[in-house]
Amino acid sequence: MAYKVPIGISNKHLHLSEQALAALFGEGYKLTPYKELVQPGQYAAHEQVDIIGPKGSFKNIRIIGPTRPQTQVEVSLTDARALGIEPPVRESGKLQGSPGVRLVGPKGEVELESGAIVALRHIHLSPEQAREAGLQDKDLVDVKTSGKRPLIFEDVLIRSGEGHFREFHIDTDEANAAGIANNDEAEIIRKKN
Amino acid sequence: MAYKVPIGISNKHLHLSEQALAALFGEGYKLTPYKELVQPGQYAAHEQVDIIGPKGSFKNIRIIGPTRPQTQVEVSLTDARALGIEPPVRESGKLQGSPGVRLVGPKGEVELESGAIVALRHIHLSPEQAREAGLQDKDLVDVKTSGKRPLIFEDVLIRSGEGHFREFHIDTDEANAAGIANNDEAEIIRKKN
Repeated sequence: MAYKVPIGISNKHLHLSEQALAALFGEGYKLTPYKELVQPGQYAAHEQVDIIGPKGSFKNIRIIGPTRPQTQVEVSLTDARALGIEPPVRESGKLQGSPGVRLVGPKGEVELESGAIVALRHIHLSPEQAREAGLQDKDLVDVKTSGKRPLIFEDVLIRSGEGHFREFHIDTDEANAAGIANNDEAEIIRKKN
Repeated sequence: MAYKVPIGISNKHLHLSEQALAALFGEGYKLTPYKELVQPGQYAAHEQVDIIGPKGSFKNIRIIGPTRPQTQVEVSLTDARALGIEPPVRESGKLQGSPGVRLVGPKGEVELESGAIVALRHIHLSPEQAREAGLQDKDLVDVKTSGKRPLIFEDVLIRSGEGHFREFHIDTDEANAAGIANNDEAEIIRKKN
C-alpha cells in the first residue's frame, strides 16, 4: 500500500479540565480560540500557562481546546529532560502512573499528581479516509518520511472515527530526527497486524 | 543481512583546532582526557566552553579531543533552534557554508565564521568489522532500532577505516524519537547501494 498523509508536528502543549481551567484562569472562564487545528472541533487557544517541573520550567505553553475530562500535558523527551520528569510514551488519555507537573496561570496554580506524557505517534483518519486506505481504528502501520533524514516509523497507531481527519501526529524530537517540517507528507507503506 | 551495532548517542559537543584551543584556554594549553570514547584515540576532554548563538546559548559544552584541523560544533536541530542558527545536516569535516557561533572559554573568545553542523547519522566499523558485515566505507544501509518507539533509519552512512570501531552514532533528537538509550543495540537490515 501507499497512502499519503500530511504531517502535523506537535510542540509541547496541554489540555485542561474545566476544573483546572477555573483554577488557573478564574471561575467561569472560557477559552478563546486562536487557531483552528486539522482535527475537527479542536483549536489552539489564545491562553497559555507556565509548566514547572522539579528541574526546569517552560513559560507560555499553549493550551489546546476545548476542555477535556482530564488535564494532560504533552511534551517531548527533550522537554521532559529539561523539566526533570520521566513521562511514559502513551496514547492520549492514558495517564495512569504518569508524572505530574505544576501549572501556573494568571489567576492561580494547579499541582498535577499525574498527567504528563510523551504522545505516542499516531495517524488520524476520518471513517471515510480509513475505508479508502483499507484501515481501521487501532491498526498499526509503518510510515515512511522523505525529509533530509529519511525514516520509517514502525508500528504507528491508526485512530479513526468521527472527529478525526487525516494527519500524522509526531512530536518535535521525531520531526527533528526525520528532518521534516509541518505539512510535509508521509506515506503509509504497510499494515502490520 | 542482520548485523548488530551498539548505539552511541551524541549530545552537543565540539572539536577544537589548535588555534581555537590556544585562544580559548591560553597559548600552549593541552586538553586533559576525561573519558575515552569508543572511537580509538578519541576522548571527552575535561575542558568545556560556552556556545553563544544569536538567540540563545549553552554553558559548559564538552570538548572532544584530540584537536582537529578545523573547529566543529555539533548540535541537534532542537539545540540549533534554541541557539537561533540553521545548521545543515552534514558529515563531519564538511563545514563549508555552515553557520558560525561564538565560543567562550576561560582565557578568551572565538567568533567562528562557520563550523556548526547537525551530524549526519553514521556507523563506524573497523576494516575487519566491515569485512565481517560485507560492507565498505561510504556504503549506505538501513538500520532498525527496537526501543519503545521502533524506527528504521534509512540511508545511514558507513564510515570504515583505521581509527573506526563498531558504533552507530545518532544525536539526541534521533535517540529520543527512537526511545533508546546509550548502548542499546541497532541492527543493519539491508545495504542500499
